[in-house]
Amino acid sequence: MAKRKASVRKTARPAGKKDYGKLALELHKKLKGKLEVVPKGELKTRDDWSTMYTPGVGAVSSYLAQKPKEAREYTIKRNTVAVVSDGSAVLGLGNLGPIGALPVMEGKCAIFKAMAGVDAFPIVLDTQDPEEIIKIVKAIAPTFGGINLEDIAAPQCFHIEDRLKAELDIPVMHDDQHGTAVVVLAGLTNAAKVVKKKFETMKVVVVGAGAAGTAIAKLLHKAKVEDVIVTDRSGIIVSGRPGLSGYKKELAKITNPRHVKGELLDALRGADVVVGVSGPGSITKHHVEVMADKAIVFALANPVPEIHPEDAKRAGAAIVATGRSDYPNQVNNSLAFPGIFRGALDRNVKAITDDMKLAAAKKIAALVKKPSADNVIPSVMTPGLVAAVASAIRK
Amino acid sequence: MAKRKASVRKTARPAGKKDYGKLALELHKKLKGKLEVVPKGELKTRDDWSTMYTPGVGAVSSYLAQKPKEAREYTIKRNTVAVVSDGSAVLGLGNLGPIGALPVMEGKCAIFKAMAGVDAFPIVLDTQDPEEIIKIVKAIAPTFGGINLEDIAAPQCFHIEDRLKAELDIPVMHDDQHGTAVVVLAGLTNAAKVVKKKFETMKVVVVGAGAAGTAIAKLLHKAKVEDVIVTDRSGIIVSGRPGLSGYKKELAKITNPRHVKGELLDALRGADVVVGVSGPGSITKHHVEVMADKAIVFALANPVPEIHPEDAKRAGAAIVATGRSDYPNQVNNSLAFPGIFRGALDRNVKAITDDMKLAAAKKIAALVKKPSADNVIPSVMTPGLVAAVASAIRK
Repeated sequence: MAKRKASVRKTARPAGKKDYGKLALELHKKLKGKLEVVPKGELKTRDDWSTMYTPGVGAVSSYLAQKPKEAREYTIKRNTVAVVSDGSAVLGLGNLGPIGALPVMEGKCAIFKAMAGVDAFPIVLDTQDPEEIIKIVKAIAPTFGGINLEDIAAPQCFHIEDRLKAELDIPVMHDDQHGTAVVVLAGLTNAAKVVKKKFETMKVVVVGAGAAGTAIAKLLHKAKVEDVIVTDRSGIIVSGRPGLSGYKKELAKITNPRHVKGELLDALRGADVVVGVSGPGSITKHHVEVMADKAIVFALANPVPEIHPEDAKRAGAAIVATGRSDYPNQVNNSLAFPGIFRGALDRNVKAITDDMKLAAAKKIAALVKKPSADNVIPSVMTPGLVAAVASAIRK
Repeated sequence: MAKRKASVRKTARPAGKKDYGKLALELHKKLKGKLEVVPKGELKTRDDWSTMYTPGVGAVSSYLAQKPKEAREYTIKRNTVAVVSDGSAVLGLGNLGPIGALPVMEGKCAIFKAMAGVDAFPIVLDTQDPEEIIKIVKAIAPTFGGINLEDIAAPQCFHIEDRLKAELDIPVMHDDQHGTAVVVLAGLTNAAKVVKKKFETMKVVVVGAGAAGTAIAKLLHKAKVEDVIVTDRSGIIVSGRPGLSGYKKELAKITNPRHVKGELLDALRGADVVVGVSGPGSITKHHVEVMADKAIVFALANPVPEIHPEDAKRAGAAIVATGRSDYPNQVNNSLAFPGIFRGALDRNVKAITDDMKLAAAKKIAALVKKPSADNVIPSVMTPGLVAAVASAIRK
């Protein structure tokens, strides 16, 4: 297995919560893997064998070799998604490599099936070279009806996704980017309602210019949030800042219209919303204190948020959301990706467009009938969720 | 999708048999894929979500990043096999490409689960370049506890398997080679008993020097069958024949000890056994007529055998075996590969050795309590089959 520099963050447990890490280790050891691959047809009689396999299957193979598009009707392709990761950015934990990524990918596949009936299979890669990843995903694509890229670090993730979208004829979505952006937009839609602020005049700061931060800023821009500032480890991203990479230059063009310069604290003065997609500790109580009245704090690092929800509230936040299932307002990608791929597979959609993402966010937000401070995002258990999101994905 | 030269043989239906091709097309259209990926754990309560997925799964990922060998205990790796094909030699049908191969690979995965509880997933590749295939399989290997290569044409299959065996730390087996060889050896063991001939003095001709033919000749050699002749499209393979490729030169060293030269007919004069692993029509009634008394004919091309079983019998064969499930004596790889991988996964075996293959063949042969002309090979339904074969695979 290729060697890789370990860059692993510690997992801390918020006080007073169950030790889900310990429970998860126990559950995983008991299950020994969270997925099974199960035949849909029977293999009991000689006739079963002769039609599920040889000699009968030869006719199906010959037919599909002539008409490969019919694979949708005769094989698993139509309902099957690859969940692909190189393990370079696993949750908020860092570069854990392919084996470290596998439990997360299995969990994601379990969710795909449980929520949306999608057959998803984890493919964790023993390489972190973007060109190799592109080549590999293209080569294994024939089995699949869609590709969910997952936990691949920025900036490689942008290039990998762009290339695969251009070169494959099935939908490709890096969920850390677009799934997150869709759910954040849904949550902010309702949060803005609760605090009675408008997207057009709201000031939003995104902490972190990785996969999620970049996609959130872009989708908020598409959703008519005019004043978005993105910060990274060097501070506020603004046109002309020395050393900006290509992807950040693009980001600078559509964000920070007031050309604010400086550090995160400078960006946050008077801001209405902060969206943390960086890592534990990057948002402090003081950061929240300088924000505008009725501040909205989305602290989405997983499993440990940028600021503890209790601290954010004490510092004056009106609404707090996290990525965790054990706090209110979980910004959970599972609200989006199962329905997005369900819709894409069913409608044979070749690409997930910005318009589809905006429509999906609207559908998710609308599932909260009466938004309140502790209820801006629906639960993943909401009846009709997957069908609603899937209906946003149409040609 | 990469372009590829179609080289497709026609499928013919033996007279008086069910039209399994038509039935298979109907079944496949109804099922729309023969596999499902199903979660083993529940996703009903918030606690389920927090342990199957975030935040709890983070602890499992962090743990495995430090101790990747523990993946056997915490992930699907221990019970999961990739069934990998480039579609270059699908059944006996030729180069059907990845989509043409997919129904066969799905069927194989269904058999893996139904027979041996192994979770197998089909990976069909949009490349037929050996170096690329090697690179891709190595890169996707972390998810898997074993690699079953399938329907990859000779001679590339030899190089691909050799390299992957050398470079991966999980068992890799090209089933068209070794699964076939194990079952042929099992069948010949019983067939020799029925006609009262001994391996040491038996003359065997293998028609076809592809994946199966090469592996059969090698395993028979290991099993003390001294007189094996292999033929290809240019006739008998013999040391010194002009233009022999590297792999065939190796084969010439361990076969054809009498240095017979000429065509298939020359090889078959007085032969006790012919094993066809080439294609429909390559063995004629006349071929069988020149063989020794009590001839054994294994006509294994699938779905259409080299010679119809009825024709072989009429030409004097005492025992006929085919690859089909609708005739007696089915030489069916499903007798071997589920148990071989079951044993390899359970015992954490890194490679399938020749000794293991010989032991597996012995176990399979022994399941036929009283061999007879129409019963030299057990059925795949034989109770205890998988456990018996698995017990042959030990460190």
